[in-house]
Amino acid sequence: MDYSEIIEQNLNSILKDREDDITVRAARYSLLAGGKRIRPKMMFMTYDMISGSDNSLFDDVLYYAATLEIIHTSSLIHDDLPCMDDDDLRRGMPTCHKQFGEGIATLAGDLLLNLANERLLYILMEHPEYAYASYKISELTGYRGMIGGQSIDLDSENKKISLEKLYELQSKKTGALIESAIITPYYLVNRTTAESAENDETVTLLRRFASHLGLAFQIKDDILDVVSSAEELGKSVGKDERDDKSTFVTLLGFDEATGKLEEEINGAYGVLDSLALKDYKTDDYRAFVKYLEDRGN
Amino acid sequence: MDYSEIIEQNLNSILKDREDDITVRAARYSLLAGGKRIRPKMMFMTYDMISGSDNSLFDDVLYYAATLEIIHTSSLIHDDLPCMDDDDLRRGMPTCHKQFGEGIATLAGDLLLNLANERLLYILMEHPEYAYASYKISELTGYRGMIGGQSIDLDSENKKISLEKLYELQSKKTGALIESAIITPYYLVNRTTAESAENDETVTLLRRFASHLGLAFQIKDDILDVVSSAEELGKSVGKDERDDKSTFVTLLGFDEATGKLEEEINGAYGVLDSLALKDYKTDDYRAFVKYLEDRGN
Repeated sequence: MDYSEIIEQNLNSILKDREDDITVRAARYSLLAGGKRIRPKMMFMTYDMISGSDNSLFDDVLYYAATLEIIHTSSLIHDDLPCMDDDDLRRGMPTCHKQFGEGIATLAGDLLLNLANERLLYILMEHPEYAYASYKISELTGYRGMIGGQSIDLDSENKKISLEKLYELQSKKTGALIESAIITPYYLVNRTTAESAENDETVTLLRRFASHLGLAFQIKDDILDVVSSAEELGKSVGKDERDDKSTFVTLLGFDEATGKLEEEINGAYGVLDSLALKDYKTDDYRAFVKYLEDRGN
Repeated sequence: MDYSEIIEQNLNSILKDREDDITVRAARYSLLAGGKRIRPKMMFMTYDMISGSDNSLFDDVLYYAATLEIIHTSSLIHDDLPCMDDDDLRRGMPTCHKQFGEGIATLAGDLLLNLANERLLYILMEHPEYAYASYKISELTGYRGMIGGQSIDLDSENKKISLEKLYELQSKKTGALIESAIITPYYLVNRTTAESAENDETVTLLRRFASHLGLAFQIKDDILDVVSSAEELGKSVGKDERDDKSTFVTLLGFDEATGKLEEEINGAYGVLDSLALKDYKTDDYRAFVKYLEDRGN
């Protein structure tokens, strides 16, 4: 099922009544600036895959899906700042600091990052059984996850880094949130705890799937940076090479990067086969991997 | 009792084994750059006041005390950035961005803000009864608290604002974390929930005490900005007026601001009287209010 409209509606309701504050306006400007909402959609794909006809946790999944999109937006706002990637455009629109100034944009990123964590905590007052789910999202956002990846990224500017380091960078910077998106609904449905996660085969499979998908996603992005037109991608093309940035294409060359992409795609399909053997409905994810493979922007 | 050494030791242990990452180094640089540790100390003052001879939650109070100092440090790093207050010195040392560059400093602030929230979530896996305590800290950090205050501050730059707006700004920007510091140990000891907080007289008293103390603290800061020597305060003196900043002194004048300070101080003593009637041991807080009143830097 397509949940795009429900996701947009839900995001649009967030902080809607607080727009007298300029930082809230800046945060909402970026949160509602479009985007593919891939992470929220993944959450629903997992939820549909594992929940069968039982739809009782739909609202909670939506709550966590929006929370993840809030974290993602927060990271984009700070990534775009002049002291980071220095981007003027995002999805064809002025970036947050271009629209509101650097100070407000910095604060809007902080506001969203904290808001996401407030939400992760808020729901635990009613649902203590989600403690592990909430904690893992915050952990994968922090220094061991997304922020750790951004740190490696910033530290590698204008340097050639090893392929191994690039894998670490990407598995943290983009992979960590993708893992959160894919696995959180499973934690919610199963009331997973730190202990039960240890010996759960499905957890292991979903994490492997997330790893393949995250890397496929990033390699595809790197490939598109050199082949896509500016209009299609909504950002400057060939920017990575001009910035002397280490990507899978600049490190491996175009052909080998394409081979790596195929490896990760095949790995993802392989995990879906294993999940299908456990009677999970993997059709939506199959179509999604196919879309990822074929996408031109 | 003086917990300074225990607090410093605990802060020094945080992320100690992750210093291969430059953003972690930047975060630790700022976290360990000294400071009075007033918020952690307040937490222990409240804990000593309410717990009597029962010391069983000492480690948990320390955990939350360090968490609060992490949030405070995060906000200082971002506040000092060129796009915010643009400060080169903090406690007589180069600010984080002066030492590590703006990109890393921005990320170090994010890392610490998220780390604090990770900690608020982590402890709930073992202690679900702290859900309200954890949530309230995150709420008071976010758009309804500290970050909301920073937003008003940034939005008021080079503007005269009303006294009412200045009260709102300060009660959020500095008051919110002070409330967290003062009240969190009470929540921990009493396993306070959203419901039980509603009808708890001590909660009301502690929040009023926090409000008086936070305002007294800020008014004193504003007064010291005009009277103290640069050496004593470790930052540029008379900066507020040169920056055309709205403070209690620039809005009210020196004498009236001094009167307001006295009002808040007396309000704080008044709440301590009420707490003493409930058999709480208020001596340490009395001495602290006295110190606040007399401090010259």
